[in-house]
Amino acid sequence: MDEAVRTQAPVLLHLDSSADRSDGSVTRALGAAYARGWLARHPGAEYRYRDLTAEPVPLVGEGYVRLGTRAERQGALPLEKVAALTEGTAEEREWAVTLPLVTEVRAATTLLVGAPMYNFSVSAALKAWIDRVSFPGAYVDPDSGRPLLARTRVVVAAACGGGYGPGTPREGCDFQLPYLRAYFAQLGVAEENLRVVRAELTRAGDIPALGRFRELGERSLAGAREAVGALAESF
Amino acid sequence: MDEAVRTQAPVLLHLDSSADRSDGSVTRALGAAYARGWLARHPGAEYRYRDLTAEPVPLVGEGYVRLGTRAERQGALPLEKVAALTEGTAEEREWAVTLPLVTEVRAATTLLVGAPMYNFSVSAALKAWIDRVSFPGAYVDPDSGRPLLARTRVVVAAACGGGYGPGTPREGCDFQLPYLRAYFAQLGVAEENLRVVRAELTRAGDIPALGRFRELGERSLAGAREAVGALAESF
Repeated sequence: MDEAVRTQAPVLLHLDSSADRSDGSVTRALGAAYARGWLARHPGAEYRYRDLTAEPVPLVGEGYVRLGTRAERQGALPLEKVAALTEGTAEEREWAVTLPLVTEVRAATTLLVGAPMYNFSVSAALKAWIDRVSFPGAYVDPDSGRPLLARTRVVVAAACGGGYGPGTPREGCDFQLPYLRAYFAQLGVAEENLRVVRAELTRAGDIPALGRFRELGERSLAGAREAVGALAESF
Repeated sequence: MDEAVRTQAPVLLHLDSSADRSDGSVTRALGAAYARGWLARHPGAEYRYRDLTAEPVPLVGEGYVRLGTRAERQGALPLEKVAALTEGTAEEREWAVTLPLVTEVRAATTLLVGAPMYNFSVSAALKAWIDRVSFPGAYVDPDSGRPLLARTRVVVAAACGGGYGPGTPREGCDFQLPYLRAYFAQLGVAEENLRVVRAELTRAGDIPALGRFRELGERSLAGAREAVGALAESF
């Protein structure tokens, strides 16, 4: 079938990575709003959810590094041939944890990532998932060399406690959104398929020094809610 | 005693965060070389070592967020008053894990950070430590508002598999060194007290597409070894 008209059954993979599992989490609320809208548009479609804080992805270990290096030396390698490369139980265990997570990413037609900013970057919970799923060659077609995720849609539901825009004292300290853009581009996600919504200054009500930005934070949150609602209806 | 002439007993806190615990880890080798030199210059001085991969710092949980938010709302708060703010066992547990790690950072006169690049950024193992030790207000003098780490020296022993310099295809994808510089500056470390050594293109021998940069990678590693040796003798 022609690739342009091939219709893949929609699958949403939804990740949360905020340590705050309460109603107060902005990224969880934004992500949930997108997921609700998506599910309403795709009744009966497959929906997978991972809470990377409640069930952390284990840090990659030495076996992962050894296996990844061995796979990388081979050049393009189909995913199903990696298991045959494992040497010893440590590598087998690493691959047993990794393969289902990689398979899940490849199967998703839309990937929804809840990503709060922690210390200028993504949370360690999300980085543990990134370090695990980014196995060498896992998202490249071994025959054509083309990216397997070129048609995957990625929605990032983000928040940051302060303000990082041009002219602010924290300009140049945003290692969250520019990072995620670079990471997903490297994974092969097309630029037009990556959409980002971020509420800024979400901690203005908690941090005395940011108190005067409280209203700005509320407006940013309202804008992010609106943007994610629009995305949920159209993307 | 005048702050300028106060002599603090030297303490080195050495962190490793590479998943590769073998001799092949460049960041572990560079860090170890610095530590050896430092110890030779400071016989009998206190040396603390943490392998953040072998003994991962647990991800911050909901209790950490609640306690941190409560502390932040108070404005400047001495570290020893945080325990009295905890509510419930979850927050107590979080603080019991956090306080020793924060105390260790505050006690160090030199902090040595082994930091490989994973997926354009620091490893999840290092980020878990960062997210944990960066408790609100932990590095600010509650009386003067001044940074407690202004005189702390930080040495980053870094490596990256590819090349990220100006003019390379990966220019703009370095979220490792610019990130660590921004993070430690925010923590109050003075710019002149932060030294970074990085070996680049360390994976050129493993990745077929980078093969032609192998010699460049070897030169970069030799340069990093030399630089870290010089730092160990003087900084």
